[in-house]
Amino acid sequence: MIMAKTAEELAALQKEISISEFFEKNKHLLGFDNPTKALMMAVKEAVDNSLDACEEAGILPEISVKLKSVSEDRFIVTVHDNGPGIVKEQVPKIFGKLLYGSKFHRLRQSRGQQGIGISAVVLYSQLTTGKPTRIWAKTNTQKKATYVELVIDTLKNEPKIVKDEEVESPIKDSGVIVSIELTGRYRKVQGIDDYLKQTSIANPYARITFTASDGVKTIFPRSVNELPKQPKEMLPHPYGIEFGILLRMLASSKSRTLATFIANDFSSTGAQSAKDICVAAKLDTQKIPSSLMREEIDALLSAMQRAKIQRPPLDCLSPIGGKELEKSMKKEYPSSEFAIAVTREPSVYRGNPFQIEVGIAYGGDLKSDEQMTILRFANRVPLMYQAGACATMEAIKEIEWKRYGLQQSGNNMPVGPVILVIHMASAWVPFVSESKEAIAPYPDIIKEMKLSIQDAGRQLSRYLSGKRRTGDQQRRLQIFERYSVEMATALHVLTGKDEKDILKKLKEIIENRNRLKEASQKAGDTGEEVAPLAVGEEKGEEE
Amino acid sequence: MIMAKTAEELAALQKEISISEFFEKNKHLLGFDNPTKALMMAVKEAVDNSLDACEEAGILPEISVKLKSVSEDRFIVTVHDNGPGIVKEQVPKIFGKLLYGSKFHRLRQSRGQQGIGISAVVLYSQLTTGKPTRIWAKTNTQKKATYVELVIDTLKNEPKIVKDEEVESPIKDSGVIVSIELTGRYRKVQGIDDYLKQTSIANPYARITFTASDGVKTIFPRSVNELPKQPKEMLPHPYGIEFGILLRMLASSKSRTLATFIANDFSSTGAQSAKDICVAAKLDTQKIPSSLMREEIDALLSAMQRAKIQRPPLDCLSPIGGKELEKSMKKEYPSSEFAIAVTREPSVYRGNPFQIEVGIAYGGDLKSDEQMTILRFANRVPLMYQAGACATMEAIKEIEWKRYGLQQSGNNMPVGPVILVIHMASAWVPFVSESKEAIAPYPDIIKEMKLSIQDAGRQLSRYLSGKRRTGDQQRRLQIFERYSVEMATALHVLTGKDEKDILKKLKEIIENRNRLKEASQKAGDTGEEVAPLAVGEEKGEEE
Repeated sequence: MIMAKTAEELAALQKEISISEFFEKNKHLLGFDNPTKALMMAVKEAVDNSLDACEEAGILPEISVKLKSVSEDRFIVTVHDNGPGIVKEQVPKIFGKLLYGSKFHRLRQSRGQQGIGISAVVLYSQLTTGKPTRIWAKTNTQKKATYVELVIDTLKNEPKIVKDEEVESPIKDSGVIVSIELTGRYRKVQGIDDYLKQTSIANPYARITFTASDGVKTIFPRSVNELPKQPKEMLPHPYGIEFGILLRMLASSKSRTLATFIANDFSSTGAQSAKDICVAAKLDTQKIPSSLMREEIDALLSAMQRAKIQRPPLDCLSPIGGKELEKSMKKEYPSSEFAIAVTREPSVYRGNPFQIEVGIAYGGDLKSDEQMTILRFANRVPLMYQAGACATMEAIKEIEWKRYGLQQSGNNMPVGPVILVIHMASAWVPFVSESKEAIAPYPDIIKEMKLSIQDAGRQLSRYLSGKRRTGDQQRRLQIFERYSVEMATALHVLTGKDEKDILKKLKEIIENRNRLKEASQKAGDTGEEVAPLAVGEEKGEEE
Repeated sequence: MIMAKTAEELAALQKEISISEFFEKNKHLLGFDNPTKALMMAVKEAVDNSLDACEEAGILPEISVKLKSVSEDRFIVTVHDNGPGIVKEQVPKIFGKLLYGSKFHRLRQSRGQQGIGISAVVLYSQLTTGKPTRIWAKTNTQKKATYVELVIDTLKNEPKIVKDEEVESPIKDSGVIVSIELTGRYRKVQGIDDYLKQTSIANPYARITFTASDGVKTIFPRSVNELPKQPKEMLPHPYGIEFGILLRMLASSKSRTLATFIANDFSSTGAQSAKDICVAAKLDTQKIPSSLMREEIDALLSAMQRAKIQRPPLDCLSPIGGKELEKSMKKEYPSSEFAIAVTREPSVYRGNPFQIEVGIAYGGDLKSDEQMTILRFANRVPLMYQAGACATMEAIKEIEWKRYGLQQSGNNMPVGPVILVIHMASAWVPFVSESKEAIAPYPDIIKEMKLSIQDAGRQLSRYLSGKRRTGDQQRRLQIFERYSVEMATALHVLTGKDEKDILKKLKEIIENRNRLKEASQKAGDTGEEVAPLAVGEEKGEEE
């Protein structure tokens, strides 16, 4: 062969690949596979970071998003938040280095979890426009703001600072402004508008304003004025541990003995379970953690996974909450005639706690001859793409929707005027790709989703059958009313009582019925049975 | 809020995340999401590397895969190749560092393209078993073999060498042996066996043996004894360039002027196109490449993408080849009655050349009441999972299979005794995830796939209608034979010729027909029309 290479020649070609180079070439893995999506991703990553920061700092989020059109396919996205700000030294790394952040190493529900998001936007921006990203940041101890212009040195995966100065602050108390120029396309559907509307549903305590490039301003107001309870950081649970992780934990533990290591470095363990595990693993409780040999670690791991240990603590989760979700659905879909939400008890997957919430809005402006609209969320972030790969869709497909009063042919998506919201809250969401658009379809997760949907479905079904019954009664009442004169005559003949009196009483019964019905509708009462009207019923009789 | 954090407190939590840590936690992104798949991935990554190395060194691949069961869910995978080997210094990095390799920076068809594969297997192995990976490597200039035992230091993403010595070589001339212990599950379907069978189809010049843990040996022999033409490395094509890449190329170019930069650093450009591009961009041809300002780069990029430039060279591709694919399909599906393959002309997507090949095998042991079997390949590597996300499936769905003689209800997969092979060869395959299981459904790629399938489909259709016609003729011939005596009598009466003579001639006609038919079947001749038999036709008349 002419071009055949020896091992030595091949060796000369071996090279390190920086993570920035890798994602620059594989930008579709980060969600930058088309211009509409790219623009939405830029807003999404900035807003997600703002929401995370506000919550951690205990600040009610107030976020403004501005879109400026530079040319038909080029935009400047500016996101301004009222979060705690970022200390000067951290600004370059947070925006200018992939795989850097505060969330990857902590087990705790948050929007970000990879340390890739916003720096990926910076990467895409410089790839498509060459422009540096501009950042203003101010903490409440600073008088002036930090101003940085930067790009990413892709070959090194390090920030390259173009400008760095102190400036008069455009930020009031504290917060961050990030301004990024990139190639993109602006569309309402599956774009910024949809993303923000859905974000507002899952984050009812955030106030978000969006100024489009034509100057039109959309406000997504709060429907709740209080921050949710903060999720707490949890230690890893013994059931979710793998050999390599345990090895590393043992090597770096500050605990002096194996027993204290087991009791202190994990969640849900204590002195007793530590002792039990050591006995089961035939290991001395006083052993120094870092001294364990491979076979001993194997035994320890196996004992940990067989031991009876409580489920992990659930305060690392921060669900939207049933009432809050109902409120925000009613706010965003004001015309819908019915909205409910259920929050299931948390469950555990490989040592990771997670919790599913489902909301259903019905009727109003929603179209009854189209497929149901599905809004998917993970840790309060809307999932806008890759629905086909998502656990939520698996769960939805496995439901017999006819049971809950919706039309469905075969295994197709149900048809009806319904918005279905599914939210997964977890300390670690298993996404199918770095772009975090779909939840991996693990059986435990699908199962919990199905149970939640069924729960909400039953409530919808009760409402719909109540509605059907009310319709039937209404029709019977109308017939009754139409024949009331004839009936009064007949009753007069049968009973001998005064015909006018009978007619008056009949009319009163009808009016009374109608009033009852209206009251019940106003109260949003959907499930209660109303007894069928019986002829000759006494006026004012209560059921 | 009790737990509220200041910007300073948040800063203390910011940390770098190593790529190894990232993929350790996100191992499902690399394809390690279930035990069966994990075991298959280990074999796949090792075999893909072996095939790449053999081809680059011009060696006919001879690969042995051995599986040893340690316990029910733990295996040792050993892959031994006859490639060029690896020089001592490179062994640790190739196996013990993610994002390291020779293929990422070169535009040229190869199986590996990310520098993640085999090190991901090492990562998964140590995560699940803690055992180091063992590697023997020998180049043909070495007398002894290099032996290394290593793990990955996940926090640094660097190899950690456990043992490193020269040993008596278990390798004959040159090659690599890698032995990895990991948690997994052994299943035939979508496991090692399927992967190797399919690999053998797409790499007909490779000889592969597989020894399962029960000692049973399967041999996948060669069906072709020659290596394919080596794909050449190509320079980037101007149509596939983005701002950030152009900026970097300008900064690091060895060309002294803009004109030579355009002519030499890209594929399909020359002195004239360089001049034209400079004129269109209103840039001096003599400018020093690294001196261009942002606006000038913008103008250059835009001019490059508007200029008339030839398509990129196609010798960076190495398709399987129609005949080779047919041969290997016949080898792996010997009972099938019909097999064809088509290789389309290469096409270009965003400056990247790619080429689609399609093969169809029909009948034999294949089941006629089941969905068609689809084998997907990218750069000769079988794609075993995530079919739903793959461009191939999109293309298949858009085909009206009834046209080609197969049953299909609605948009479902067609039903019939068919194996459909689709291969995409490209210098850069856009995979939907790092695990490289599905090709991103870009319209240009889907279109080429559809055209290729239609091409192969027409051949299938011709074969099937030929077969149907032959069946009809056969039936008519049988009837003719059954009544030949009566017919001879009748003809004798009508013509007055000798009855025995007539019967003899009739029999000759029938035999002749049958011989013709058999010959045509043997030659695999499918498309030719056979004229319907006419009574009284002369013996021996050729069509």
